[in-house]
Amino acid sequence: MIVVLKHGVPEEKKAQLMSWLEGQGLRLHISNGEYQTVIGLIGDVSGVDFDLVSSLEIVDSVKRVTEPFKCCNRKFHPDDMIVEVGDVKVGGGHFVMIAGPCSVESEEQIVTVARAVKAAGAQMLRGGAFKPRTSPYDFAGLKAEGLELLRIARKETGLPIVTELMNINDLPLFEDVDVIQIGARNMQNFDLLREMGMLDKPILLKRGLANTLKELLMSAEYIMASGNERVILCERGIRTFSDYTRNTLDLSAVPMLHQMTHLPVIVDPSHATGNAKLVPPMALAATAGGADGLIIEVHNDPIHALCDGAQSLRPEDFAALAEKVRAIREVVA
Amino acid sequence: MIVVLKHGVPEEKKAQLMSWLEGQGLRLHISNGEYQTVIGLIGDVSGVDFDLVSSLEIVDSVKRVTEPFKCCNRKFHPDDMIVEVGDVKVGGGHFVMIAGPCSVESEEQIVTVARAVKAAGAQMLRGGAFKPRTSPYDFAGLKAEGLELLRIARKETGLPIVTELMNINDLPLFEDVDVIQIGARNMQNFDLLREMGMLDKPILLKRGLANTLKELLMSAEYIMASGNERVILCERGIRTFSDYTRNTLDLSAVPMLHQMTHLPVIVDPSHATGNAKLVPPMALAATAGGADGLIIEVHNDPIHALCDGAQSLRPEDFAALAEKVRAIREVVA
Amino acid sequence: MIVVLKHGVPEEKKAQLMSWLEGQGLRLHISNGEYQTVIGLIGDVSGVDFDLVSSLEIVDSVKRVTEPFKCCNRKFHPDDMIVEVGDVKVGGGHFVMIAGPCSVESEEQIVTVARAVKAAGAQMLRGGAFKPRTSPYDFAGLKAEGLELLRIARKETGLPIVTELMNINDLPLFEDVDVIQIGARNMQNFDLLREMGMLDKPILLKRGLANTLKELLMSAEYIMASGNERVILCERGIRTFSDYTRNTLDLSAVPMLHQMTHLPVIVDPSHATGNAKLVPPMALAATAGGADGLIIEVHNDPIHALCDGAQSLRPEDFAALAEKVRAIREVVA
Amino acid sequence: MIVVLKHGVPEEKKAQLMSWLEGQGLRLHISNGEYQTVIGLIGDVSGVDFDLVSSLEIVDSVKRVTEPFKCCNRKFHPDDMIVEVGDVKVGGGHFVMIAGPCSVESEEQIVTVARAVKAAGAQMLRGGAFKPRTSPYDFAGLKAEGLELLRIARKETGLPIVTELMNINDLPLFEDVDVIQIGARNMQNFDLLREMGMLDKPILLKRGLANTLKELLMSAEYIMASGNERVILCERGIRTFSDYTRNTLDLSAVPMLHQMTHLPVIVDPSHATGNAKLVPPMALAATAGGADGLIIEVHNDPIHALCDGAQSLRPEDFAALAEKVRAIREVVA
Repeated sequence: MIVVLKHGVPEEKKAQLMSWLEGQGLRLHISNGEYQTVIGLIGDVSGVDFDLVSSLEIVDSVKRVTEPFKCCNRKFHPDDMIVEVGDVKVGGGHFVMIAGPCSVESEEQIVTVARAVKAAGAQMLRGGAFKPRTSPYDFAGLKAEGLELLRIARKETGLPIVTELMNINDLPLFEDVDVIQIGARNMQNFDLLREMGMLDKPILLKRGLANTLKELLMSAEYIMASGNERVILCERGIRTFSDYTRNTLDLSAVPMLHQMTHLPVIVDPSHATGNAKLVPPMALAATAGGADGLIIEVHNDPIHALCDGAQSLRPEDFAALAEKVRAIREVVA
Repeated sequence: MIVVLKHGVPEEKKAQLMSWLEGQGLRLHISNGEYQTVIGLIGDVSGVDFDLVSSLEIVDSVKRVTEPFKCCNRKFHPDDMIVEVGDVKVGGGHFVMIAGPCSVESEEQIVTVARAVKAAGAQMLRGGAFKPRTSPYDFAGLKAEGLELLRIARKETGLPIVTELMNINDLPLFEDVDVIQIGARNMQNFDLLREMGMLDKPILLKRGLANTLKELLMSAEYIMASGNERVILCERGIRTFSDYTRNTLDLSAVPMLHQMTHLPVIVDPSHATGNAKLVPPMALAATAGGADGLIIEVHNDPIHALCDGAQSLRPEDFAALAEKVRAIREVVA
Repeated sequence: MIVVLKHGVPEEKKAQLMSWLEGQGLRLHISNGEYQTVIGLIGDVSGVDFDLVSSLEIVDSVKRVTEPFKCCNRKFHPDDMIVEVGDVKVGGGHFVMIAGPCSVESEEQIVTVARAVKAAGAQMLRGGAFKPRTSPYDFAGLKAEGLELLRIARKETGLPIVTELMNINDLPLFEDVDVIQIGARNMQNFDLLREMGMLDKPILLKRGLANTLKELLMSAEYIMASGNERVILCERGIRTFSDYTRNTLDLSAVPMLHQMTHLPVIVDPSHATGNAKLVPPMALAATAGGADGLIIEVHNDPIHALCDGAQSLRPEDFAALAEKVRAIREVVA
Repeated sequence: MIVVLKHGVPEEKKAQLMSWLEGQGLRLHISNGEYQTVIGLIGDVSGVDFDLVSSLEIVDSVKRVTEPFKCCNRKFHPDDMIVEVGDVKVGGGHFVMIAGPCSVESEEQIVTVARAVKAAGAQMLRGGAFKPRTSPYDFAGLKAEGLELLRIARKETGLPIVTELMNINDLPLFEDVDVIQIGARNMQNFDLLREMGMLDKPILLKRGLANTLKELLMSAEYIMASGNERVILCERGIRTFSDYTRNTLDLSAVPMLHQMTHLPVIVDPSHATGNAKLVPPMALAATAGGADGLIIEVHNDPIHALCDGAQSLRPEDFAALAEKVRAIREVVA
């Protein structure tokens, strides 16, 4: 950590700060320039309150020279992590396609969609049983029954299932779920993250709507520091001024995260755009940009089929897309 | 709800949509213009999936004409709600000052600060016992012990206490807390909101970093629809491109919320700016802009005292500020 | 245009508004619902002040049903526009690669880079002669001399040149420039846009840092309505809270713009990311996402060569990238 | 300037960088820590390309220790600048109220409004003659005739006039305008800024929709470095995800700018909110937050008067507001 002091700071205040820092067990390396004094902190700075020091009146700025995350830091783990879900591998050159409906609605629906996406090449099945809803009056999913229907679809197709958990107290219901998804709104639900760290199953961690990459990695760190290293990151759009899509898909997050961390990074073009017409081009773009996988909504219900779903593709659209995705993987992998 | 169809939609598709809408128990009012058809939906539209209809291929756009929130809607509750916390009133012309340290650290600290802010005119004491921290390695508060120290400070000063709850399972510890704060990161933790709706105590609901006013009100609606109408809203800064303050205080949210809802709205200038020097001007601005109260961080620890805290004022700064706040209330109230 | 009135508006105010609207030469179509009155405006609404009507006390909201842009509207021009620059075609299935240095620095530099990018498959040469600089103290380009050096490079390689114009009064110097670029900061310099509309050469119009797609199209409309239809749009990143790249590349703008307009859309991954390591993945992603071309910075100067440029690739990096771009075009075109 | 190198950089590359830096006439101060090397650059760093160095492969980060602005830097000009416009003073304790219609429409309109706002205490008259319009089809102001009408209103009332210039070539028409306004869209029209620097009259510089405070100050620096020190800054809202107001008024910019610069800072609540009901609370908030003045839209035309303007107050609303503004100035000044 490097502390830059303001110009013309009284010696006495400078001495007070330095003695306080030394009191925290750090060695100091002072460099007096013409315009400012720079203090290098040597030793374990993890106990130093970065925000506090930044805000001191005599301090111009503070710069971290080591990132605050360790477990998920590429610097300490140069090789890609490969997360295994049964026979399916994610990361380190292994590309995964996860597909399924937004919400689980009936046995017929989920089994039909599961078969269709499997035939098209999907390796995992997604489907919401517990649904976060902005309004207390909206349908919040079939809950336990939805999980049961997912299990049936898994049995029918062999596809591992991915589904969202929102409440720690529902955890017992998720015991045999293959991958637990932590949604964007819970990315900083720190107690929930810690619980995920105690499980022995992969966690799909979605980036929050207004979270930086560093914050995403700190949330992965919560899970990993609690003992579970099997974390898959997911970019699913951020909130910006731009109003023509539901969110703004931040695709450069993918190669940037690959520089920062060894964890696999997948992309959700369905939620990012909220517009079925934009899903195929953004799925292809994500693949070309180096994503380790895609999670895509596919539906089969009649009103969608009649007219085209908000953010869901029909099974035949998904099959056509999956073929192009594979062709692009040939180019970039 | 008004559905605008695209120009040149085939009659057959139009008929399918209309019959589907009628199937939901709605009456339709059709208006055929030169360039488009507009369908007015009459009846209970709460079951209609707004996003789904918006996304249909033949639909140009959908417009709600009634807001999706009822319990907190000014239209149905023209009079300001006054939330009572013991003898303290918030809203409807009653202005509240809540002050205290960021974290509860020791009995001496919390009691000293509590006495100081009371002397300066604060009517409630804030202090964090459970602290949300971005990093798993950072100090997360004294937890149960912190709550105990807050109780001691309350006993010493008579000030009701406000403190943050993050985990449903900690609720038993909060039984005699006067006001439970739901932090920005939990604004859309819907299960937690529902639990708050079952309590018989005021809830201080902070706006999320990237949430619209409508989303804030939908979260208040979760609490109120579950039975607890005593909700105080809090603007505490949003995340924007602007990088010189921690967040961007969105002060026009205050008068706008007053138009939309009858709930009281307070402002947290400490977290919004993350900069003690900006707290007094923003506290005064919030007061002049019509806020129903302020929640401000005040500290008394030596390193802060030596140099000035990141986002905390010293007790004497708070006292000077509180006096000006009262003078501005004279002008605007 | 559709005007939704508030619930319970006095008949007299309603009548005043309607008579004012009729006074603007419009026919009105009134629909009285249970909760609101909806007025459809029929006729030429281009003279109606949208913002003014929106703001009237009795008005709940106003909805445009026709977009305010005509010349660049896909609805009226279903076929892709193909912009020709000499023998090079852009749009309608023709993909263009534009490459070159950030600034023109010397004859040797620009000719060397031009030859290298031509060999790698670029069809146009970019290079800044007039440079917008945030600071008045920074180097602002070689100006007229830079344009002269671009002409030399064109003569040597046959590549058409693309370069930025900032000031109407410099226009005479740009007479034989092949494509004039209007930069992000000038996207809403309306007088400059009008001048571009009077030229007989293609204009490369970059999206502003905080501009919506509608605003981008309105700026294209300024050029086209003044008589010049040869506009190429360029997505180059928007400003968001996200801080790890210079800007956030908004790639879903590409397929969305293709729905809204028939104009070609290219992508600038160099300025969007400001990070040479992210340029190749984002160039590939843009190609897969359906862009009609790329504009990429390539350098050959020693300090860059030593260490890697901020946002520039070396010629050999560009050549490797161009090959993959062509392979991806095979998949998506 | 401080350059932090990455961990484990080869000595040879380090030496190349250092010799290149020394070649720029700088002395280097090297500090080798356990995890990184920090190079302090001593001497005139204004010629060093900050972005280039930041991007070098061996560089972890670069930190400026002196701001890139001088003329408008509070550090070098501790006393507030007072900008004089005839007898009116702005800054350094002098508060200014500027009011008038959005567009100048007729002699009767502008004279009536000018008289009304003068009677209410306004010290300057604003009014648009050249109007920036997003659409090429919208009314763009009365231009030269509008300026003439402003002159008439000035003659009638004695109020100095403030009006926007968009095009360098219109400058001759603005010769006797008292204050030239540079609008948000032109904040980075650098050639225009330079021209403003050659005038001998005050410039009102509005912050761009997506510009940081540093960028705003760099634009002020363009004007001041060209010789004109009479710059008044204006906060008028930034573009964020928040959608209930036209822009988000960033009020903490006011006290923050006061720390960074000695220039006066005024606030435009009309354009920031785009909503007449929010103008009074935000005008009061700006005053309480320490602004040096306000610029407010006031109208008198019948359709506005009938129903309430989008962002304009009626003269009587302005008079009531002005009185409260003065009362708040009593508290905070």
